[in-house]
Amino acid sequence: MEPLDYHAEERSKASFDVEEMKIVWAGSRHAFEISDRAARLVASDPVFRKDNRTMLSRKELFKDTLRKTAHAVKRTIELNLSEEETHTLWFYVDQPAYANLHWGMFIPAIEGQGTEKQKQKWLPMAHNMQIIGCYAQTELGHGSNVQGLETTATFDPQTDEFVIHSPTLTSSKWWPGGLGKVSTHAVVYARLRTDGQDYGVHGFIVQLRSLDDHSPLPGITVGDIGMKFGSGAYNSMDNGLLRFDHVRIPRNQMLMRLSQVTREGKYVQSDVPRQLVYGTMVYVRQIIVSEASCALSRAVCIATRYSAVRRQFGSENGGPETQVINYKTQQSRLFPLLASAYAFRFVGEWMKWLYTDVSKRLQANDFSTLPEVHACAAGLKSITTSATADAIEECRKLCGGHGYLSCSGLPELFAVYIPNCTYEGDNIVMLLQVARFLMKTISRLVSGKMPIGTAAYLGRVEHLMQCHCEVQRAEDWLKHSIILEAFEARSARMSVACAESLSRFSTPEEGFGEISADLVEAAVAHCQLIIVSKFIEKLQQDIPGKGVKTQLENLCNVYALSLLHKHLGDFVSTGCITPKQGALANEQLRSLYSQVRPNAIALVDAFNHTDHYLGSVLGCYDGNVYQKLYEEAWKSPLNDTVVPDGYDEYIRPLLRQHFRTARL
Amino acid sequence: MEPLDYHAEERSKASFDVEEMKIVWAGSRHAFEISDRAARLVASDPVFRKDNRTMLSRKELFKDTLRKTAHAVKRTIELNLSEEETHTLWFYVDQPAYANLHWGMFIPAIEGQGTEKQKQKWLPMAHNMQIIGCYAQTELGHGSNVQGLETTATFDPQTDEFVIHSPTLTSSKWWPGGLGKVSTHAVVYARLRTDGQDYGVHGFIVQLRSLDDHSPLPGITVGDIGMKFGSGAYNSMDNGLLRFDHVRIPRNQMLMRLSQVTREGKYVQSDVPRQLVYGTMVYVRQIIVSEASCALSRAVCIATRYSAVRRQFGSENGGPETQVINYKTQQSRLFPLLASAYAFRFVGEWMKWLYTDVSKRLQANDFSTLPEVHACAAGLKSITTSATADAIEECRKLCGGHGYLSCSGLPELFAVYIPNCTYEGDNIVMLLQVARFLMKTISRLVSGKMPIGTAAYLGRVEHLMQCHCEVQRAEDWLKHSIILEAFEARSARMSVACAESLSRFSTPEEGFGEISADLVEAAVAHCQLIIVSKFIEKLQQDIPGKGVKTQLENLCNVYALSLLHKHLGDFVSTGCITPKQGALANEQLRSLYSQVRPNAIALVDAFNHTDHYLGSVLGCYDGNVYQKLYEEAWKSPLNDTVVPDGYDEYIRPLLRQHFRTARL
Repeated sequence: MEPLDYHAEERSKASFDVEEMKIVWAGSRHAFEISDRAARLVASDPVFRKDNRTMLSRKELFKDTLRKTAHAVKRTIELNLSEEETHTLWFYVDQPAYANLHWGMFIPAIEGQGTEKQKQKWLPMAHNMQIIGCYAQTELGHGSNVQGLETTATFDPQTDEFVIHSPTLTSSKWWPGGLGKVSTHAVVYARLRTDGQDYGVHGFIVQLRSLDDHSPLPGITVGDIGMKFGSGAYNSMDNGLLRFDHVRIPRNQMLMRLSQVTREGKYVQSDVPRQLVYGTMVYVRQIIVSEASCALSRAVCIATRYSAVRRQFGSENGGPETQVINYKTQQSRLFPLLASAYAFRFVGEWMKWLYTDVSKRLQANDFSTLPEVHACAAGLKSITTSATADAIEECRKLCGGHGYLSCSGLPELFAVYIPNCTYEGDNIVMLLQVARFLMKTISRLVSGKMPIGTAAYLGRVEHLMQCHCEVQRAEDWLKHSIILEAFEARSARMSVACAESLSRFSTPEEGFGEISADLVEAAVAHCQLIIVSKFIEKLQQDIPGKGVKTQLENLCNVYALSLLHKHLGDFVSTGCITPKQGALANEQLRSLYSQVRPNAIALVDAFNHTDHYLGSVLGCYDGNVYQKLYEEAWKSPLNDTVVPDGYDEYIRPLLRQHFRTARL
Repeated sequence: MEPLDYHAEERSKASFDVEEMKIVWAGSRHAFEISDRAARLVASDPVFRKDNRTMLSRKELFKDTLRKTAHAVKRTIELNLSEEETHTLWFYVDQPAYANLHWGMFIPAIEGQGTEKQKQKWLPMAHNMQIIGCYAQTELGHGSNVQGLETTATFDPQTDEFVIHSPTLTSSKWWPGGLGKVSTHAVVYARLRTDGQDYGVHGFIVQLRSLDDHSPLPGITVGDIGMKFGSGAYNSMDNGLLRFDHVRIPRNQMLMRLSQVTREGKYVQSDVPRQLVYGTMVYVRQIIVSEASCALSRAVCIATRYSAVRRQFGSENGGPETQVINYKTQQSRLFPLLASAYAFRFVGEWMKWLYTDVSKRLQANDFSTLPEVHACAAGLKSITTSATADAIEECRKLCGGHGYLSCSGLPELFAVYIPNCTYEGDNIVMLLQVARFLMKTISRLVSGKMPIGTAAYLGRVEHLMQCHCEVQRAEDWLKHSIILEAFEARSARMSVACAESLSRFSTPEEGFGEISADLVEAAVAHCQLIIVSKFIEKLQQDIPGKGVKTQLENLCNVYALSLLHKHLGDFVSTGCITPKQGALANEQLRSLYSQVRPNAIALVDAFNHTDHYLGSVLGCYDGNVYQKLYEEAWKSPLNDTVVPDGYDEYIRPLLRQHFRTARL
């Protein structure tokens, strides 16, 4: 029997080679194969089932996480997976777990901040998971501002120990994943005090729980911080709280690569350059941008497939109603998100190169690109994660009422995704850092200092302040050079306007505070330019496969022109384009939507998401949505019994008027 | 002992009379008193406790709903509450329950569509809750387009019965609240077939469950449709599915006020005007707009209070960090939402008048205002609910990481609120209806037909197409007349541009489809104008209380100018204002934020929300946030035991390397 495929006709309409597009999306044939294999491995293993996740109680869900994690470790060993394969498998297990923090934060912290001796001692145990660690930085009263942390680590020269202590309620460690119920150890950030002085925040390895029976060690108060957004989602994680009551650790558990405390209690800085920490930051943010494209592509895949199944209105002569994907209102909301998924994918890929490049330079003590790279990574982290969070919710709305059902997969995807906007740098704080970089870059132009990399265009600021967009017909908007110049001019003019505003204040700091909302907008313009330009650069590469490049051209234009339409006020009020040119861009956009339409299903197929990974009845590959929704409904816990629990106490007496008669 | 109040200093800064503002917010002293009493009644009753809601399993949560509902009914009877008081009490119970549909949809459907005889038979039973009903309209495959419903009601003249049937899977009734596990009856919408013809969709009263033992009647398949967005939230409701297998009901259970089927099976229309149904629609949408202001004010209250407690960065000489509410980035995101809460409140109030007015007219067979009223209600429903949904999520982000905790109240508020964007008319469909009205209004201008009510400004279209904004200094933006004309000109010009585009297509329908995204934008502009103008009208009333009016002036200006900034592209590209004037508006906005700042806490106090209703640790009245967060954390189910369930099976073996040795 042929497998059912409600999308078969849609798939046959595509005018490009989907298999080749899958390689482009994955980044390489190798990456595609690793990813494809891991996805199938997870999907076919009943332990990794996740369709019941939103129905579990918190305790059941947490136990499910423990089970999946142990199983994943076991499978990794059994199958003798490489590091890359292991990482990919964890990714497809798709459930926040303590192991993410152990591998992603605890181990890297020791690798980055530990001395060789410390690494030799701790890393083998950590790699074997003989100890499980977390990253205890944020506190109840302190998030983004690391310098505001209150936990203290006071050196006691008498015993050669540090005393770790939580002096106030607000100093309680709060949020670290894996801390609540699992971690045996933590890298704890605390204010180093020695020699009568406060030397600011440093990292310390602290054991939290007994390796015998898992009970918290003396002086340690530790627990889970409670329920979080949504059902399922991050509730699988034991984000924790932690308080220290004068807990003593040996001096050699301070992470001493960058600075040391001697046996005598002297604070000494090593000659290892502090800038190395920025390399790690770029690495982490590159991963976040990459994952934004994964989450976004998942939401877009669900909304696109369901929009082709769902029909509303427009029935002629009693025939079927119109597929909602054919409505321009649907297209104008959905296709820019589809284009964004590809845009974020490619900018994430480019950031991998950026990370390699900056790492090489740092090793050669070349710090010249750091400010630009740092601003770029911060900005891209911010705008890709904000856009993805909004887009997931928009995709849910695009699925109408059924998007509100947990089995659509979108509620949980939203709930699990949104912390990306806050952790690893709050998105607004990130944009203000970008703005600071932009203002500095502009102020240095007068002294002839030419900006580099993603800020290089500001070196042409004189031209950009006065150039005129040459668009006369809608099709002119398809030229890369025209799009690029419009985005460059918009960003340059917004930054220059901010710089001019700043100069009117008595101090730059006062001005920076006053016009910070404008600065954020200028930073957004700069970051959007980066994404547009990296998409265009991608198109200048050799891209094989029938029709693949044409599709990417369309998506690149959709991405750029939909941004232009959304931020029309920026472009027109800075005089970068005329209102008429704005209207032409909009016209061109409509015609691009018509070109994307027949390829839409194939363009989301190219993400190669399994039904397991998607976790959505609405987005299932075969499009048999209604049958699956119906079957899913019967799994509701409330359907365990015909008559609901509570009927005897609370419904029957009502129907029988018992409350009324009781009163008489 | 003095009660603790971390906000005392903030409260003392306010330059207006909060108690008087409470009356303004409530609408009248009477409304304030009813509301205040009901809120306290609910807050002080342990049965109505809701702080543990997100930790309950689905079954526990549902039983909790049944318990609260029965208790509310009991209390209503015991306290002999009036209808208004009862309604207010239900509102403060703040948990979606079958009773909302019974009182809000089932009974009104019978009242509106039943004959006198039918009302006499069914309403007393319904009012006493001897039967419990729901409203079964939407189907698995059919939402917004009521005419596409598939369920059939075929008249059988042999037995004088209708045969209700679900011919396909997609015809399964899907979503009705209260249907899944509770309702004994439903008003079912089905295609009426008699006399060999299909007469379209009509309503029928159908019994679903036995009044003896609550089991579904023969031929009826009924159940819960499963988990929905978030934890807690709408999972307290038994949204249901329903299938009919040739279920027979007596002919007199068709709701026959508007049309009848005779004993012989003839379809007859009564002379009751069909337009009456629009009255109900305005009523329901007015309530939705009113509730938008409640939900929004709740989110804003939480975010504002916490922003005054929370401190980040900016510490000088080791002193405390800066309250985040002092940052302009925070103000520029938060204060427009605060202003929107007031704006939606007042437009909701005005809609009450609109409903009264249209009801009077309908009774006098005056249908002249209907198209305008209908467009207005549809549009306001759409933009207030969309803005509120977005705003709740924005408020969550404004609370940083802690906003992600369930105990912040914001995740559940978001989850429970967002269906408002879909039900009672999908928000995009609503805006397209507004756009259709606008296009019709404009096309009729040539024949001299003058528009009325909220569309009256289009009668001055010639002036609005060519007027120039007179702003020269930032303060000029404080003039109502200037703001109003800018918003009128923007809306008129966008509508006229759409009308011109439409004229270029071969048929209006084709054009309407093609440019629908632009039409939606024009509709938004029109609706925003309505809200701005109703806020301004409110200010023309006599408003007592020291400083109250000044505060409302500020908020009105913040609302209008922040919209102008957000939609700058509309205003500038239509030539309504110059880029320079846009920049001046932004400058004025900044200075308004400084005026709102010292009054912010008092402005949210004026909502008079109890801590119970807010349901937020971050938003608690006394501001003792960190202590409460800490206490709340220990209630996490995972903290029931020190060592988590699953440790023996999944953590200890990992730490002890059992998976590794097993392999060797």
